[in-house]
Amino acid sequence: MMVKVGVINVTGYVGMELARLLHQHPRVELASITGRSAVGQRLGEVLPHLADIDLVIEPELGEVVLVFSALPHKTSAEAVAAALELGIKVVDISADFRLKDAKDYEVWYDFAHPAPQLLGEAVYGLVELNRHQIASSRLVANPGCYPTGALLAIAPVVKQELIEPDIIIDAKSGVSGAGRTLTLGTHFAEANESVSAYALEGHRHLPEITQQLSVLNPALPLAVTFVPHLVPMSRGILTTCYAKLKGVKDDVRELYREFYRGEPFIRVVEAPPQTKQTLGTNLCLIYPTIDLRTGRLIVVSCIDNLIKGGAGQAVQSMNLMLGFPEGMALEGAAVYP
Amino acid sequence: MMVKVGVINVTGYVGMELARLLHQHPRVELASITGRSAVGQRLGEVLPHLADIDLVIEPELGEVVLVFSALPHKTSAEAVAAALELGIKVVDISADFRLKDAKDYEVWYDFAHPAPQLLGEAVYGLVELNRHQIASSRLVANPGCYPTGALLAIAPVVKQELIEPDIIIDAKSGVSGAGRTLTLGTHFAEANESVSAYALEGHRHLPEITQQLSVLNPALPLAVTFVPHLVPMSRGILTTCYAKLKGVKDDVRELYREFYRGEPFIRVVEAPPQTKQTLGTNLCLIYPTIDLRTGRLIVVSCIDNLIKGGAGQAVQSMNLMLGFPEGMALEGAAVYP
Amino acid sequence: MMVKVGVINVTGYVGMELARLLHQHPRVELASITGRSAVGQRLGEVLPHLADIDLVIEPELGEVVLVFSALPHKTSAEAVAAALELGIKVVDISADFRLKDAKDYEVWYDFAHPAPQLLGEAVYGLVELNRHQIASSRLVANPGCYPTGALLAIAPVVKQELIEPDIIIDAKSGVSGAGRTLTLGTHFAEANESVSAYALEGHRHLPEITQQLSVLNPALPLAVTFVPHLVPMSRGILTTCYAKLKGVKDDVRELYREFYRGEPFIRVVEAPPQTKQTLGTNLCLIYPTIDLRTGRLIVVSCIDNLIKGGAGQAVQSMNLMLGFPEGMALEGAAVYP
Amino acid sequence: MMVKVGVINVTGYVGMELARLLHQHPRVELASITGRSAVGQRLGEVLPHLADIDLVIEPELGEVVLVFSALPHKTSAEAVAAALELGIKVVDISADFRLKDAKDYEVWYDFAHPAPQLLGEAVYGLVELNRHQIASSRLVANPGCYPTGALLAIAPVVKQELIEPDIIIDAKSGVSGAGRTLTLGTHFAEANESVSAYALEGHRHLPEITQQLSVLNPALPLAVTFVPHLVPMSRGILTTCYAKLKGVKDDVRELYREFYRGEPFIRVVEAPPQTKQTLGTNLCLIYPTIDLRTGRLIVVSCIDNLIKGGAGQAVQSMNLMLGFPEGMALEGAAVYP
Repeated sequence: MMVKVGVINVTGYVGMELARLLHQHPRVELASITGRSAVGQRLGEVLPHLADIDLVIEPELGEVVLVFSALPHKTSAEAVAAALELGIKVVDISADFRLKDAKDYEVWYDFAHPAPQLLGEAVYGLVELNRHQIASSRLVANPGCYPTGALLAIAPVVKQELIEPDIIIDAKSGVSGAGRTLTLGTHFAEANESVSAYALEGHRHLPEITQQLSVLNPALPLAVTFVPHLVPMSRGILTTCYAKLKGVKDDVRELYREFYRGEPFIRVVEAPPQTKQTLGTNLCLIYPTIDLRTGRLIVVSCIDNLIKGGAGQAVQSMNLMLGFPEGMALEGAAVYP
Repeated sequence: MMVKVGVINVTGYVGMELARLLHQHPRVELASITGRSAVGQRLGEVLPHLADIDLVIEPELGEVVLVFSALPHKTSAEAVAAALELGIKVVDISADFRLKDAKDYEVWYDFAHPAPQLLGEAVYGLVELNRHQIASSRLVANPGCYPTGALLAIAPVVKQELIEPDIIIDAKSGVSGAGRTLTLGTHFAEANESVSAYALEGHRHLPEITQQLSVLNPALPLAVTFVPHLVPMSRGILTTCYAKLKGVKDDVRELYREFYRGEPFIRVVEAPPQTKQTLGTNLCLIYPTIDLRTGRLIVVSCIDNLIKGGAGQAVQSMNLMLGFPEGMALEGAAVYP
Repeated sequence: MMVKVGVINVTGYVGMELARLLHQHPRVELASITGRSAVGQRLGEVLPHLADIDLVIEPELGEVVLVFSALPHKTSAEAVAAALELGIKVVDISADFRLKDAKDYEVWYDFAHPAPQLLGEAVYGLVELNRHQIASSRLVANPGCYPTGALLAIAPVVKQELIEPDIIIDAKSGVSGAGRTLTLGTHFAEANESVSAYALEGHRHLPEITQQLSVLNPALPLAVTFVPHLVPMSRGILTTCYAKLKGVKDDVRELYREFYRGEPFIRVVEAPPQTKQTLGTNLCLIYPTIDLRTGRLIVVSCIDNLIKGGAGQAVQSMNLMLGFPEGMALEGAAVYP
Repeated sequence: MMVKVGVINVTGYVGMELARLLHQHPRVELASITGRSAVGQRLGEVLPHLADIDLVIEPELGEVVLVFSALPHKTSAEAVAAALELGIKVVDISADFRLKDAKDYEVWYDFAHPAPQLLGEAVYGLVELNRHQIASSRLVANPGCYPTGALLAIAPVVKQELIEPDIIIDAKSGVSGAGRTLTLGTHFAEANESVSAYALEGHRHLPEITQQLSVLNPALPLAVTFVPHLVPMSRGILTTCYAKLKGVKDDVRELYREFYRGEPFIRVVEAPPQTKQTLGTNLCLIYPTIDLRTGRLIVVSCIDNLIKGGAGQAVQSMNLMLGFPEGMALEGAAVYP
């Protein structure tokens, strides 16, 4: 018996990855896809690499048990509320249910939240931190790509209060992270052969990071600086985190290994990882080390921004919500090189 | 019951892709891997993205039913002959059993073939052309990456003698096609942001192409010019083939569709494809069209050089040789973008 | 005494390269720049890398002796006609004065030419073929990037009628060739790590190529097939041309060397070139060779599409039109690697 | 009257850029080049993009007034000492005269310094900080590429003691920074489409950074963490520096503008820069800003690692040492896009 699921707005980068992963899932049937454009076209006409998925892009969602909403923020909140009304479980890819305080949406996203009553109920979909709540939830807010890489890198030491409150998060992302909407900054000849920092005045993923760190350790008065960078590759995020250790730790790597013991998608690695080692996978590679000259902890993490930082993590949550093995349809090593 | 298979020289690009694909195969067990270097190390130490494969690189092949040899030419022939002696079936990734005439190895590869008696028996592993012989063979010569893209693009019109004998094959390959051996031409800063033509005096894949075209149509006195180009990407080959049509064809695309009807890995497409649409897959996308101004046929094909042009095609042959469904472990859409 | 020149529509890729080259020219003063957008802004606000050029983007051209029009086609023709009326010499970067027959603009560019009376007078700005006419002209039609690479590669053998009339031109271009207008095909994540063929039904540069070849040798009934490809790099075009030789030539390279003797920007090279060797220069590298197996001539050429294929060639023409040394402001070796 | 200069070991990336820049210098003659390999070959045979430089690679340096040594460390020290003996001025590209304490070479570079008596005399070639000493020196130690980007970014606030002693330097470099020696990590398919951090245990450029910061402000007990990253592009370094401000500054950008007033190659910019804006130039773009949430200073700098971080800076020093205008042969805007 296959469970029917749908994807709202399948034509963006996370949407298309959801379709790909769901199509190869042995227990669900991708039964309905919608798009903001291209309605009425076959999926393969719009996205040739998905030509084997025999579906038409529809204006309205069909009958499904669970839906992924990959709409832009604000619009997504409305679609999510409507789906929940119909008794459909939701994994929301947008930012609309990640923050707990409705006012934050006015500050960071410039809109009045249309469904603030759902913010309390929504579960933040970082499975490694919220596995049980996700399993019993009907609304999961899938984390942003940057927060995924950053939170997995520093959760152990924040939770166990092993660091001073000053944290620097310097993230390097492939260009697909900026989405499929055309902009000059993501025009090939402008982004290629170049690195840049952006959103130095405050990126929208910052409140999501600080909120989750507060949940992990409400007592720690964190001062987080987060600077995202654009690097000329299609996929991947490498996050380098810096924080002062409280006292010298004998083996910080062992501590991380312990914290993530049994996690199917976390690898605490023995050498600095590269993003390429995660391409096409739901893995997060984490390399913690200590700068002995300064007593500073450095943690490097790597993910595929569209999988662990997007569609893969969403399917991981879906698996829990539908009672399937957590890693179903998410197996397989990186496509390397 | 899992069938034990092995990979000789797992540390090259095709070798590592073989390990990845075989590890996810539901009916075979990757039981033995060897390497020219790194003997005694765990696979994950040498290739971190394969850390989930719990194997040590051994000096000698263990007990297996079928083996892939990914050794360089000449060395491979020796290993292949030895394996066959032991009753092991072989898919040879090297060029050593692709050409029928032992003298060609002296001309094109500069060595005297150590096992010329096996050349007649070896089956050229282009499944779409030789499915039945492969299924009953004990020795399959896996095609080169360039010949795969070129032959699939022009086989229909050569076989049906719809073109004049002059054929131009202009191929554009990602840099992984040059292998993992360090050279100045594949040093990042030298290959990046650049395109070049090479081997204009005659590439080693040319005799393989002409030989197979002769097999398809012994009567046609072909004059093939083949020029490979290096483009700054990791994977993918796009092949553009040019030939004059004998008379105007009403619908060349329909003819291709008919020729490849039922083929699980061939897609005759309606718009010019891009290599990216095949990334990580065993697919070959083929776009035939006619330049009406000149009556010339143009055929564009795209493959992932390490999968359909390497490891994937080899597993496709293995599936036939071991009686499994041809596409087993080769499913899944491209990792796009 | 500096001669005042202007650039109409400075904000595109060729426009900005014109500004850069003109700014370093010892005999001209870049006195006026206009844009379709960004009027009223300083050049450095719009194009930070040109912040040292102290100019504001104006709505109308100021007083100049010569102007470059980098407008899109049709609009450019109108601006060019107006400038000529004012006695200003023009180098037109658009396609609007490259074709001799006004009807071709309806067929290939979908517009009725607004100034057909100027088509006869306009000189095709390929200096190596039309040096004297350019020097005495008031209207130069700067060649397209693809025609530049293709024509320089095959002009010698077409002019001297050494080849059969069937010519294949397979060109590989960096993405900047598609301009600065945003499209999905030039969105970073879509174009990166991929090669594709396009415009197989006939690219707009084809009539320009065939027209110029006819001028070179009106007697030769050419059948040209031209297929452009997009490769994942910012700049550069490599063109591979194929044609059958009439009889075997003893030394085709010597013939090319003779044809281009004394040309300051042509290098007939002894090994296959790569586009990177021309980055930032006005050079065209040409490598002719013979495929002895088939008697076919293969010619590979490399240019920087925005310089020899755009702004540099335009400045080269300007130098002739204003009586300066042809290579002024165009010196310097490639920025390699 | 042209001044004769030479380049020892011209075949590396900085060496070849030196040759390019010196060839276009109006007051010097590149009179002698040597190489560790390729002795006896014409420069253009080894480096086709420099074919216009009519020189043969010689085993021994000819007669020159000033020489650049681009040898690897240790070997360079020996060559430098020999040149000085002959009365030749030297700009040393290697690390051999950057550190003041001979013991540091044992710790960081694993060799006993062969000419420790010269360490005191050598001037660190960061012109913006040491202009006068460089002008009167006979031995200049050209800074490393990472220290150049880092020191220019933080010198103003270290010198004026406006920050707390904890400094994080997170640098992102193009692959040419790793040099032309072949390694697996700089093999195209391994480095492409990937970001990685490396040398987390301490990069050799760290002591150079800390030493120069101490010179700027001996009283400040700095704790510097420096993490270099490899990004998939040929050229460019973007450095992101983090430090806590002592008290809130009203306008940190104005302070930087004041510090660098009149500097020909420093641009304090109003928007986050990208490395591409420096390609082919000797510029350093600096963007200082304050993270108001945490009171932290963030400074982003961009350079072309082979020019301002290598050959260009060396020529800038040479200009001072020979009494030429500082910017001679270093003019020109970036080759963009």
